Amino acid sequence: MTYLINTATEFATDALRGFVAAHPQYVSAVHGGVVRSTETPAGQPALVIGGGSGHYPAFAGWVGPGIGHGAPCGNIFSSPSSSQVYSVARNAENGGGVILGFGNYAGDVLHFGAAAEKLRAEGIDVRIVKVSDDIASNSPDNHRERRGIAGDLPVFKIAGAAIEAGADIDEAERVAWKANDATRSFGLAFDGCTLPGADEPLFHVTGGQMAIGLGIHGEPGVRDVPMGRADEVADLLVDGIMEDAPQDRSGRVAVLLNGLGTVKYEELFVVYGRVAERLEQAGLTPVVPEVGEFVTSLDMAGLSLTLVFLDDELEKYWLAPADTPAYRRSPESLVPGQRRERTSIWEAGEDEVPDAGADSRELAGKLQGVLELFEKVCSDQEDELGRIDAVAGDGDHGQGMVYGSHGAVQAGRAALERGAGARTLLVHAGTAWSESAGGTSGALWGAALTAAGGALDDDGGADDARQVVAIVAAVEAVRRLGGAEVGDKTMIDAATPFAQTLQTEFDRSGDLPASLAAAAAAAREGAEKTKELTARLGRSRVLGEKSLGTPDPGALSFSLLMTALAEHLGDH
Amino acid sequence: MTYLINTATEFATDALRGFVAAHPQYVSAVHGGVVRSTETPAGQPALVIGGGSGHYPAFAGWVGPGIGHGAPCGNIFSSPSSSQVYSVARNAENGGGVILGFGNYAGDVLHFGAAAEKLRAEGIDVRIVKVSDDIASNSPDNHRERRGIAGDLPVFKIAGAAIEAGADIDEAERVAWKANDATRSFGLAFDGCTLPGADEPLFHVTGGQMAIGLGIHGEPGVRDVPMGRADEVADLLVDGIMEDAPQDRSGRVAVLLNGLGTVKYEELFVVYGRVAERLEQAGLTPVVPEVGEFVTSLDMAGLSLTLVFLDDELEKYWLAPADTPAYRRSPESLVPGQRRERTSIWEAGEDEVPDAGADSRELAGKLQGVLELFEKVCSDQEDELGRIDAVAGDGDHGQGMVYGSHGAVQAGRAALERGAGARTLLVHAGTAWSESAGGTSGALWGAALTAAGGALDDDGGADDARQVVAIVAAVEAVRRLGGAEVGDKTMIDAATPFAQTLQTEFDRSGDLPASLAAAAAAAREGAEKTKELTARLGRSRVLGEKSLGTPDPGALSFSLLMTALAEHLGDH
Repeated sequence: MTYLINTATEFATDALRGFVAAHPQYVSAVHGGVVRSTETPAGQPALVIGGGSGHYPAFAGWVGPGIGHGAPCGNIFSSPSSSQVYSVARNAENGGGVILGFGNYAGDVLHFGAAAEKLRAEGIDVRIVKVSDDIASNSPDNHRERRGIAGDLPVFKIAGAAIEAGADIDEAERVAWKANDATRSFGLAFDGCTLPGADEPLFHVTGGQMAIGLGIHGEPGVRDVPMGRADEVADLLVDGIMEDAPQDRSGRVAVLLNGLGTVKYEELFVVYGRVAERLEQAGLTPVVPEVGEFVTSLDMAGLSLTLVFLDDELEKYWLAPADTPAYRRSPESLVPGQRRERTSIWEAGEDEVPDAGADSRELAGKLQGVLELFEKVCSDQEDELGRIDAVAGDGDHGQGMVYGSHGAVQAGRAALERGAGARTLLVHAGTAWSESAGGTSGALWGAALTAAGGALDDDGGADDARQVVAIVAAVEAVRRLGGAEVGDKTMIDAATPFAQTLQTEFDRSGDLPASLAAAAAAAREGAEKTKELTARLGRSRVLGEKSLGTPDPGALSFSLLMTALAEHLGDH
Repeated sequence: MTYLINTATEFATDALRGFVAAHPQYVSAVHGGVVRSTETPAGQPALVIGGGSGHYPAFAGWVGPGIGHGAPCGNIFSSPSSSQVYSVARNAENGGGVILGFGNYAGDVLHFGAAAEKLRAEGIDVRIVKVSDDIASNSPDNHRERRGIAGDLPVFKIAGAAIEAGADIDEAERVAWKANDATRSFGLAFDGCTLPGADEPLFHVTGGQMAIGLGIHGEPGVRDVPMGRADEVADLLVDGIMEDAPQDRSGRVAVLLNGLGTVKYEELFVVYGRVAERLEQAGLTPVVPEVGEFVTSLDMAGLSLTLVFLDDELEKYWLAPADTPAYRRSPESLVPGQRRERTSIWEAGEDEVPDAGADSRELAGKLQGVLELFEKVCSDQEDELGRIDAVAGDGDHGQGMVYGSHGAVQAGRAALERGAGARTLLVHAGTAWSESAGGTSGALWGAALTAAGGALDDDGGADDARQVVAIVAAVEAVRRLGGAEVGDKTMIDAATPFAQTLQTEFDRSGDLPASLAAAAAAAREGAEKTKELTARLGRSRVLGEKSLGTPDPGALSFSLLMTALAEHLGDH
């Protein structure tokens, strides 16, 4: 339905006013529609394209260098009147005659035709090009009697490019008809569209069905079939057009996959993936395909596929630059060699293990021992951590720590076997912890190990001072990544006093084991204090009040691991 | 809902595959997302932008020169994993460090952050820029804690332009945060969106209400209010942002009016018309506003307004060229003077009356007599024509002919009073007939008079031969405009034998009155024959079979007018 409306009668007028306000660098309002707001060369034919409103970007969205010179804008789904067409054409004309381009519908034929008669009576050379791309609406023998749907864009784009390239009106008319004769569209709908101010759609498609051969004015399709998967829809569209494809073809096609309104981009791309495969199988090469919304039908749920069977001339014009409110094509991206193609792609796979020095490899072995210690502690504490987490969380913290530490141990072992130094061991272990555990605490522990690794290297060992730096870097990464402060009832309530105490004690004493023991005590104290807090962030935030009286599981597990680490180093 | 889908689990992957297939000139697929398919200069910082899928064009649609260097693409509404982010960043990085840009959501903060830790551990300079433009999600004092919505586009566009202009990573990070701090968005929703494969939307807005302060992941708004008119919605959005506007502002703003999915372009333009007025009242000048779909939320019905309060630096980058799959900005349209502004607009109004020669004015007087004759005949025959039309049409043909001929007589009289020649009189009368009568037959009669006028001039009179040319031209215009052939049961069934007989008889005898009399007889015969036809085109096509045995009203009225004309000329 239409949500944003002042009055139904003024809807199209209001929309046109807003369109002009948004794009003064492209268009000026004139009676009945818009023309380019910039001058065109004297003697250049004017391409005046239009039809009813409700199809944006068609048609006013394509007024600008490279496509249209003006667009008469009718009411919703109604042809502009002949006086609207006349006014726009009169303004767009600059001594080179006028091509009136529109989709082939009775009302448009009549009103554009009547305007043409008046312009001719005034001595202006007028040509009429009716786009007729919809294969569902008539037989191949009567291609020029078909309805015009999304083929409007490539036909006008190609004709506009010919004009920009210097074509006179005879030449531009010839190219436009040639483009039209090479263009085929086929569409389907899943549901109808609703006119502004109306309560009900113009038609409904029965649930589970899709209507083949839709129109763009809320006309229902020519037949209903059961709803297909995206791939089946793609096949149906490609098959339909290929049955109707011209025999004489170069193998190169302009492609337009057009959403009618509520079928969104991701869905169109899902379909396009299959369309691309099918075109390749058919020996067709898509030339700068376009996937998006080009000729819409208000909020209709549907899509259409358009192919333009290109020859060199049509391809040149299809690729030419254009600069309009809704369709812009830069010359640069299309000139071969203008931008150099990327030559290397990094593939995710087994992480690299750079060559490492003996001292760093020795340190890596010790760090692997710490990881194994962590794994054992997590395993021992799994049930208790789960029980505490279940009070105000989802109860999976123990399991997450087990999975994470186990993943880290395995990755560390594999790295060691490949000769990893300390830095690489911890970076691999950090990535593995994060991916094995999932969730927030997994990401935080992964970042901690990774940051600790980043503070070391793969060449030499690390004296006690450097180990302190690495541990503090790990805590800093947790703070940076989690965004929590002390008092938020997270791991940070244990980790912050831990790191501060470690730094202070080590600066004072230079004794790493003793400093770690003091720091672990500070961590336990910090974790204990979280009992008095309600959660603001992290896993417990949803059930904040409920967590009062229970420590934060992340703070607790941190303090348990640091206590074990301190005891481990004290023993050695 | 999502119509086009293969499987829900593969939806985002399938969409990404189709996206890459459609845009090889811009992007290459890598593990976890896409990077530019073209080389970037060594040492240039890489802007890696991303988030969940379901927001196209955000984020992959903005990868290309002028905006992003790569985009990790998560599942629908889910952050990419840290390994996805890492892989894309690793591929995008080219010696200048990486800026990770994403909307401020917990999952994205975590996974982009974890990837940053790993990249840093490998010695890569990584900066994080979280877009936080949604004013409904937090207080002005906590601007950087707000959610990121449509502000993603201008922030990344501006940062990307700074990089393109040569900024190093410090400078690019500074500009990106500056853009974010200058950006405010406010949105509302009319209905929720449905995840691919799901049966129900993530939320519903109660009918007749709208939800203020929507999210872009199907989060409902912060409060519901009664649905407003488009102008009221525009006011609400502008007021909301202006309450939060920075005090220190230049008066120039980048503007983005963003549709979330099913609110269509015409509706957005209706809203934009009012937004533009309100900005002007607030002393703000929109700089190249954008109205369309930029950061969507699947098929959500809603919209948001974004303002970026520009200074010279931000404006320069906002205006810089960009060339990506879904956002392209040409340099040419924006450089003042690059294209010359149009200086004259033709205004619809009273049609011009060129100076005319005495002979042509005299002929015009006679033609006015013919129009008055037509008016009288139409008036006399109104009921009969209406009765015949009602058999298989809507019964308004008599009325249409009366209105049309009356309008033509009035326009002709006004033109005569202003000294019109023959050509101008008929062109004015033709336009008036068409507009007064409406409908197909009005357009055809209007075109006939207009074409006859076009065959005359305003200088001299017209001998009998030239009058024949004009009458034949009139019939030719009817044929051209109506597209009917003899046998289609239209006016053409009378007009064609009329014109052929007129031409043949006049060529043979040189006697206009006698030729006209013969031609009128042929017209009557043609009209009579239409009784035996069923309609294929024109007013009777809907009820084709029903019309058998009744003449075509258009053919009949034509023959009646030509008979009267022949008698009129025969009398003089």
